[in-house]
Amino acid sequence: MANIQSFDELLTFAAKLWPKRIAVVNPRNEETFAALRDAMEQLHVHLFLAGDAEIIRTAMGSSPSITCAPAADPQTALALCIKAAGSGEADMLMKGSVDTGKLMKGVLEEKAGLRTGRLMSDVFVFEDARRHRLTMITDGGLNVAPTLKDKIDLILNAVQVAHALGNALPRVAILSATELVSKSVPSTMEAAEIAKMGARGEIPGCIVDGPFALDNAVDEEAAREKGITSPVAGQADILVMPTIEAANALAKSTTYFAGYRLGHVVVGARVPILIPSRADKSDAKLLSIAMGMMMDVGT
Amino acid sequence: MANIQSFDELLTFAAKLWPKRIAVVNPRNEETFAALRDAMEQLHVHLFLAGDAEIIRTAMGSSPSITCAPAADPQTALALCIKAAGSGEADMLMKGSVDTGKLMKGVLEEKAGLRTGRLMSDVFVFEDARRHRLTMITDGGLNVAPTLKDKIDLILNAVQVAHALGNALPRVAILSATELVSKSVPSTMEAAEIAKMGARGEIPGCIVDGPFALDNAVDEEAAREKGITSPVAGQADILVMPTIEAANALAKSTTYFAGYRLGHVVVGARVPILIPSRADKSDAKLLSIAMGMMMDVGT
Repeated sequence: MANIQSFDELLTFAAKLWPKRIAVVNPRNEETFAALRDAMEQLHVHLFLAGDAEIIRTAMGSSPSITCAPAADPQTALALCIKAAGSGEADMLMKGSVDTGKLMKGVLEEKAGLRTGRLMSDVFVFEDARRHRLTMITDGGLNVAPTLKDKIDLILNAVQVAHALGNALPRVAILSATELVSKSVPSTMEAAEIAKMGARGEIPGCIVDGPFALDNAVDEEAAREKGITSPVAGQADILVMPTIEAANALAKSTTYFAGYRLGHVVVGARVPILIPSRADKSDAKLLSIAMGMMMDVGT
Repeated sequence: MANIQSFDELLTFAAKLWPKRIAVVNPRNEETFAALRDAMEQLHVHLFLAGDAEIIRTAMGSSPSITCAPAADPQTALALCIKAAGSGEADMLMKGSVDTGKLMKGVLEEKAGLRTGRLMSDVFVFEDARRHRLTMITDGGLNVAPTLKDKIDLILNAVQVAHALGNALPRVAILSATELVSKSVPSTMEAAEIAKMGARGEIPGCIVDGPFALDNAVDEEAAREKGITSPVAGQADILVMPTIEAANALAKSTTYFAGYRLGHVVVGARVPILIPSRADKSDAKLLSIAMGMMMDVGT
């Protein structure tokens, strides 16, 4: 079993996997094509590229590993890719030049056959150089104001990624601005509720605790100074943020301030979905593909 | 006039200031005493230390620059310090071993004479090594769910710090998870409202714009890629976060992930107030004192 602690290990491990088939919706820009070429070189992938056939052939050439599905517009490309994923012909869906909202709406349609009954959420992964481990943040991409019930799905989705990377029992920290449960900070009370659900065995596959502030979730010394006794304190693998704004800013800060590498994947549908942002470099797109390949998402 | 872009410049500049008098409420632990000794060595300060006289004298010795005010308990120490600040005998208030809530409550009492009519808020400052400038985040410390009206005070308080550091027209970014104004993300609509208030001249002393995601607020290339035209995009000096959780996590991430130096100061009362956290190192406490010394807070 994998026990992946860094992105280099992720790429090494993913390169050994059997080929996975990636359906890409309307690839058009060079950063996307560069990531796809990297994936073909470094990993075993078969690409199903739906979009402008001429643009695709010019950028990617022809190869037995590429199926080009001509589509006159993004909506047609999307329909072709969703059909490929729904029928089992593709193992993963990746966004090119198409609106994220439209892609998600297409995935959620009953007839697509991609729903699991669980909420879909974005799991952001960064390589924490200070702690030498892959750490996850959720959800900075899809769910604007998740309810407590939604957050359980967010946790289960992130735990699924941790499991795929070989972390059999990830430590999940529910974050707020403080580690003290206080009526004046509602997110601390919700964190306490989720932590107790975890303690009662209602959130399988992980160890959940909270509330934490970021320092005592990821730094053992800070946790010790605050006198917090918890298997999660200072050792969190998954950081569950109270809002999309907090998750998005924290995730981007690991990239733009700390300079850490990143990948992210949307979990909760029957196949992993990659929604790279335009600002993601090709390295981030490649790492996201490698993570998607690790996910063995069943029904 | 100062034009301070780094913490080293801050210390150099603050060392040239006339002596400032700091009232410290119940100093007890070694990190606090270490910071106070650093301040006496590197800056011109007069310390008014209210608390256990024996502990204080053992840690600090005696010096013409130290006034020791014996106080049997934290509450008495707090009353002595607030009186010193209210009467003009102290230029700055600093928290030792006393509950932050109690300190703030004492400051807000009418009889203390420290209110300005403006909300008090915590202004976190970090040295952004990639951009070579001091950048502020607010409010990760005091205001849990600031309303739009509250946020105007948060901005004015942070702008006051920027002005004190010599940035005459700071660029203020109102943050959300995206730069697009969308009904489904309420914080983007509030950001648009605040930005328009700024454009109409209702928020003096700064250039305000938003909404932004973190990347396009602090990274010019990311702003360009998104096609955002704004004097604030990619160049923000002040990051106004929608909630205390988002601000607190982002601020701590600059310390715990990026390894940046930090200082922070509470603004909005008639004197700057320092509420160092236990996890702050003596360097952060010293930088906070130096920032407090720069603030020329009038009535």
